[in-house]
Amino acid sequence: MPAGFSFVLERVDSGSRARRGRFLTPHGGVETPAFMPVGTQGTVKGQTIDLLRGTGAEMVLGNTYHLSLRPGEQVVERLGGLHRFMGWEGPILTDSGGFQVFSLAAMVEIDERQATFRSHLDGERIELTPERAIAIQEALGSDVAMVLDHVVALPNAPERIREATERSVRWAERCLQAGRRADQAQFAIVQGGLDVALRLECAEQLVELGFPGYAIGGLSVGESPEEMMRIVEGVAPALPAGKPRYLMGVGRPSDLLEGIRRGIDLFDCVLPTRNGRNGFAYTDQGIVRIKNRAYAMDDRPLEAGCGCAACRHSRGYLRHLFMAHEMLGPILLSHHNLTYYQRLMAGARRAIEEDRFVDFAREQSAGWGATEGAEGAEGGPAD
Amino acid sequence: MPAGFSFVLERVDSGSRARRGRFLTPHGGVETPAFMPVGTQGTVKGQTIDLLRGTGAEMVLGNTYHLSLRPGEQVVERLGGLHRFMGWEGPILTDSGGFQVFSLAAMVEIDERQATFRSHLDGERIELTPERAIAIQEALGSDVAMVLDHVVALPNAPERIREATERSVRWAERCLQAGRRADQAQFAIVQGGLDVALRLECAEQLVELGFPGYAIGGLSVGESPEEMMRIVEGVAPALPAGKPRYLMGVGRPSDLLEGIRRGIDLFDCVLPTRNGRNGFAYTDQGIVRIKNRAYAMDDRPLEAGCGCAACRHSRGYLRHLFMAHEMLGPILLSHHNLTYYQRLMAGARRAIEEDRFVDFAREQSAGWGATEGAEGAEGGPAD
Repeated sequence: MPAGFSFVLERVDSGSRARRGRFLTPHGGVETPAFMPVGTQGTVKGQTIDLLRGTGAEMVLGNTYHLSLRPGEQVVERLGGLHRFMGWEGPILTDSGGFQVFSLAAMVEIDERQATFRSHLDGERIELTPERAIAIQEALGSDVAMVLDHVVALPNAPERIREATERSVRWAERCLQAGRRADQAQFAIVQGGLDVALRLECAEQLVELGFPGYAIGGLSVGESPEEMMRIVEGVAPALPAGKPRYLMGVGRPSDLLEGIRRGIDLFDCVLPTRNGRNGFAYTDQGIVRIKNRAYAMDDRPLEAGCGCAACRHSRGYLRHLFMAHEMLGPILLSHHNLTYYQRLMAGARRAIEEDRFVDFAREQSAGWGATEGAEGAEGGPAD
Repeated sequence: MPAGFSFVLERVDSGSRARRGRFLTPHGGVETPAFMPVGTQGTVKGQTIDLLRGTGAEMVLGNTYHLSLRPGEQVVERLGGLHRFMGWEGPILTDSGGFQVFSLAAMVEIDERQATFRSHLDGERIELTPERAIAIQEALGSDVAMVLDHVVALPNAPERIREATERSVRWAERCLQAGRRADQAQFAIVQGGLDVALRLECAEQLVELGFPGYAIGGLSVGESPEEMMRIVEGVAPALPAGKPRYLMGVGRPSDLLEGIRRGIDLFDCVLPTRNGRNGFAYTDQGIVRIKNRAYAMDDRPLEAGCGCAACRHSRGYLRHLFMAHEMLGPILLSHHNLTYYQRLMAGARRAIEEDRFVDFAREQSAGWGATEGAEGAEGGPAD
């Protein structure tokens, strides 16, 4: 690992593969398993830095694709880099843009040299090579940069998946070669669709290249949660035990627990903020749809015992904010959901320390009942 | 004054009529001159309670018209009253709905008994008597309730203005008769258009009725700042020196100083939040239009030395938030503007204490130059 980075694996749960660790970066440490809120455009939507810090988050994600289009990485660099730009002094991970090229851009053409596409903002033609993806992330100055990968839709023809996977390995190597900043760690991304054998092949080649961390990518793109977890279960053990493992763009609270159970250390997802903006609040008893008429006179907070800024108010007040189209509604529900996700991760970490992760996960799931995933939007690391 | 209320006049500036005072309510005190942020629908737009408190505001305004339509005053009452509903533990003033009937409602008919109109939300037919305006405000539980007045457009026929003014006095008396809560103070509203003699007639009759505070209403509805100040200058001295004086719906920073100079103690206006949402930031050097390309790479805060949450960021970052349509832009600029208004009022209070208000006002105006009012929206006590 580059100087200033380390990953300490403190404990592995005896009833599962759940890991308790600590990931150190030049901008501070992250207790793992950890959830990273998504700050697509240099802001976690609707959260001031004080609110964001108040959720308990230690590391946030920024989107290379969005920031390079607007305001442009040179602007961010001129204004002191992404940390200073957004006012977040803790660790930041940036994705490479590969997922956004797949999910947002128009007229995408991918060849061995690069991805060529048109901006979703103004149609500008853009060429993104692995080298450029790293140069952008170095200009942004994130602590962790993700390699550029070739993401394909699932399901897909096996030969297309193999081609994209093999290209992703070659691009990962080009990223590693292109890296110049000593204070930035590159994480590789395991691709391979829903084919565990192909995933393991990809993982082996990437591990051979010696990255400081590894992600599992190309998931949460329409496959079932069971299929996703089959891949995680197959791939995670093939990744180095002494390095952080990141499941990209995942997910619902239950997905986090299932990922942790299989040995994942880092997660990110837009769900807490996107669902918060739309009036869905996570609680230990499942999702509260705050616009429901039943809450009009409800004096209870979203979650008893939650100390977040939203839970100082009644459900009735929060519902009113949504019915009256007041900004404060989305602000507060996003804040609550982010706080909920951080509390869930803190609970998971404590459970691993106490060697009772499986019980913890079962208790949480029982509380959520059947409602937990009902409104789950698809993940994807942009918000 | 009702028990729990008092107004202490601490000092009057020797070079002007500017007054330094303290208004005490059952929910705490307000140092005057004071500016009240507008929380139309039970929230000052985009501000959590912590952010709002952070601006230095001591007293906020709520809108009877809006809150009675949605969520309904019974809902607010059931959820503990407006203080608990919105989580603001300091003093709250509610307007009576008179201005909104004039400015927002449709198909308004006003006779001696009541105002009849259709809701701007769903067209529902609503009858608002003075008694009902007080009953709503008692259900909301504000510290200060405003009497229902009959507001007319300016310019207007003298006989129409006189009729509305005389009706406003009779309605003020009915409000006083209707009041039941011992912990709520009613402020009367001086009407009379741009006719100082008629205004003074109105003021005299209202003073005769013995209210705990007096407002000057029906201004900031299209007349020039000079005309408005001519009225304030004429009316303020006719109001009891020992009671608070409130200039409703005013205004721009320069209007606040001109109002203070003429003996006004309380103000409210939507400008800091409305202009903040639209990307206009108040500073001692005038208005900063943050979307201007000139700020793209500007590393300076909006205002040097301002400790607000916006001023921890660069102008370049704030501009990016607006260009990227991020909620955090309006949140932060509204917060800065509210903080700016509170700092201006604190400066005015200090200047009065030091008997140098006129110098203070001149220095501030010189800093603002010609730009200060350029983007001023019309006031009006709803946001």
